[in-house]
Amino acid sequence: MTIQPIEFPGLTAAASLDLLRQHAPLVHCLTNEVVQAFTANTLLALGAAPAMVVEPQEAAQFSAMASALLVNIGTLCQSQSEAMLSAIESANQAGTPWVLDPVAVGPLTYRTEFALRLLALHPTAIRGNASEILALAGEPALGRGVDSADDSLQALPAAKKLAANHQTLVAVTGRVDFVTDGERVWSVTDGHPLMTRVTGTGCSLSAVVAAFCALPGDKLQHVAAACRVMARAGRLTAEQVAGPGSFVAGFLDKLYLLRGEDLQ
Amino acid sequence: MTIQPIEFPGLTAAASLDLLRQHAPLVHCLTNEVVQAFTANTLLALGAAPAMVVEPQEAAQFSAMASALLVNIGTLCQSQSEAMLSAIESANQAGTPWVLDPVAVGPLTYRTEFALRLLALHPTAIRGNASEILALAGEPALGRGVDSADDSLQALPAAKKLAANHQTLVAVTGRVDFVTDGERVWSVTDGHPLMTRVTGTGCSLSAVVAAFCALPGDKLQHVAAACRVMARAGRLTAEQVAGPGSFVAGFLDKLYLLRGEDLQ
Amino acid sequence: MTIQPIEFPGLTAAASLDLLRQHAPLVHCLTNEVVQAFTANTLLALGAAPAMVVEPQEAAQFSAMASALLVNIGTLCQSQSEAMLSAIESANQAGTPWVLDPVAVGPLTYRTEFALRLLALHPTAIRGNASEILALAGEPALGRGVDSADDSLQALPAAKKLAANHQTLVAVTGRVDFVTDGERVWSVTDGHPLMTRVTGTGCSLSAVVAAFCALPGDKLQHVAAACRVMARAGRLTAEQVAGPGSFVAGFLDKLYLLRGEDLQ
Repeated sequence: MTIQPIEFPGLTAAASLDLLRQHAPLVHCLTNEVVQAFTANTLLALGAAPAMVVEPQEAAQFSAMASALLVNIGTLCQSQSEAMLSAIESANQAGTPWVLDPVAVGPLTYRTEFALRLLALHPTAIRGNASEILALAGEPALGRGVDSADDSLQALPAAKKLAANHQTLVAVTGRVDFVTDGERVWSVTDGHPLMTRVTGTGCSLSAVVAAFCALPGDKLQHVAAACRVMARAGRLTAEQVAGPGSFVAGFLDKLYLLRGEDLQ
Repeated sequence: MTIQPIEFPGLTAAASLDLLRQHAPLVHCLTNEVVQAFTANTLLALGAAPAMVVEPQEAAQFSAMASALLVNIGTLCQSQSEAMLSAIESANQAGTPWVLDPVAVGPLTYRTEFALRLLALHPTAIRGNASEILALAGEPALGRGVDSADDSLQALPAAKKLAANHQTLVAVTGRVDFVTDGERVWSVTDGHPLMTRVTGTGCSLSAVVAAFCALPGDKLQHVAAACRVMARAGRLTAEQVAGPGSFVAGFLDKLYLLRGEDLQ
Repeated sequence: MTIQPIEFPGLTAAASLDLLRQHAPLVHCLTNEVVQAFTANTLLALGAAPAMVVEPQEAAQFSAMASALLVNIGTLCQSQSEAMLSAIESANQAGTPWVLDPVAVGPLTYRTEFALRLLALHPTAIRGNASEILALAGEPALGRGVDSADDSLQALPAAKKLAANHQTLVAVTGRVDFVTDGERVWSVTDGHPLMTRVTGTGCSLSAVVAAFCALPGDKLQHVAAACRVMARAGRLTAEQVAGPGSFVAGFLDKLYLLRGEDLQ
């Protein structure tokens, strides 16, 4: 018997969003080269604060000061991997939550080995698409670069296993998002296909997950709230714009203006 | 007697664009730091898929999986040059087409020497402005950073020589674009001066050239189609927007919405 | 007795802007990973030309050709620090003006030590927020990442001391901007809080300061003009847009279209 995931309530998402704007968490982003500006602007629009500090020794110093740490391996390289390891060690010592975005893990050996190494360092949460979550859980993934050919529901068992085995939270995102701690599962049915035609929507979601992980209270709920906020803002924007170019501006405006009512 | 270049027909460009959307090629972009997001968004808007994989060992692994490879030396550094050499070697072994964008070659020694080294590795196509093509062909160039002081027509003989000597395709772009395999020449008369006030329009054209090089059929035609698609979308957008800021969003929307009829 | 800073006249700013568009200075930007595209687009929109050349040996060669050099340490790393030192040495030999943006100096040891080392190399101008200027002047700063908790007026004495001791120009920016050579002080009362919700507005101001430093005439006046141009364009844009997403496009359009009358 499979228990049907329950749709995450908008009212709870609204409460988390309120909390985010009160706390304005400072997110240390070690992310890929492509999405840096969009990630920073997403956090700023929502009311959080981004900072990218990349030199290994500084990264460690800064992670201890930040409210949360994002580790996204989209354009992983040797020097960045050192910064990530330093920052994670420091975050763990300081009790700073950190989030792993395992971009394109599966078909590429170097990053896959590195992601597995990071997995052993106890991320607070993991956000990936179906292929990435399957690969990280050791299941065969049907990856094609950063696009996910698998459906997120198909990866839900892997997500639950991953969460349970590593005592972490997992958000596997796609047409529907699922968020789990290994036992409880929330689903978020929102979003819009136009979001796949804009670079960085997934990566910036991971940054937002990190921001929400810095809040006091039930972290599973906050991670689901992050998914709901981004998906809802995405859908509302996509319904109003002509294409992916105006989506970017409209989406950031929407995040800035989003009220609790919009989430329900 | 000089044969007058013939304007590339919109109908043929439309056929190539159809093919691009059917194949949705995955383009491995090793490009400069400034234009990464715009390049990725340009490919996504058109219906292709971008991926930036930068660590040398991964870059080699990924180039063999991708549909095409872009090598843009705008912010060349030591570690990136290694990734480029690995990726090109792998692409050549796998038969993956690759495109060279020789940004600012000429006045800068380090990148000029590197670009000449890449030239010997048989790029499928080269896309540059007049100064860059002149410099790559060993002719004196009047460069001022990335701006081209030369007119593209003035560089056409160098482009033809370069194409013939290296069995490659050359697109020399400017107010008018010329595309040649050393014998045949197509011209593309379109575009708009506002495109020079936005960073990355040339660099993202090179990424689009790479995407089109992944298609089956006459590659010279596909390269000319890439130029036509980008120039036409650029002109149509520029005629509608207030300035370079709204150009970016409008241009991506236009690429997303562009139909065959718009090219004629 | 404290002399009240005098509001910088719009007419003088307009004259500097005219001069900028006539000279179209080429600005060599060694800046952080997050703001590269926005910085380039800001310079292009205003009528200047950006170029990012990052490999140490090339950076030195290029700084001698460029009209001005920007050094922004927002994502400082080992290899970039070498490029910066090479470029500065070359700029100093060639008489090229260079501008320091000491992002997040204060709480982070590595960059603070590096910024102090750069200070000894005679920057033409320094542009920072209150926390950064206080830290650079050796006063205790209340920094929280890149956000400035201090008011710019509170940092004005430090700015004056810094300018006098290092024979440089200092722009300490915030709700009100102050520009000083250690004796004279101009204030710029403009700008809009929405600018703090968009990444790179401060960083691109530093690039614009560099562009204005390349102009003939009174450099203090030109630096104040850079602040006035950016603040006015920001305020005019912020009053018209829905949020930070559409701000980006609107701001670049405004810079492109800005006339002398708009500054008065």
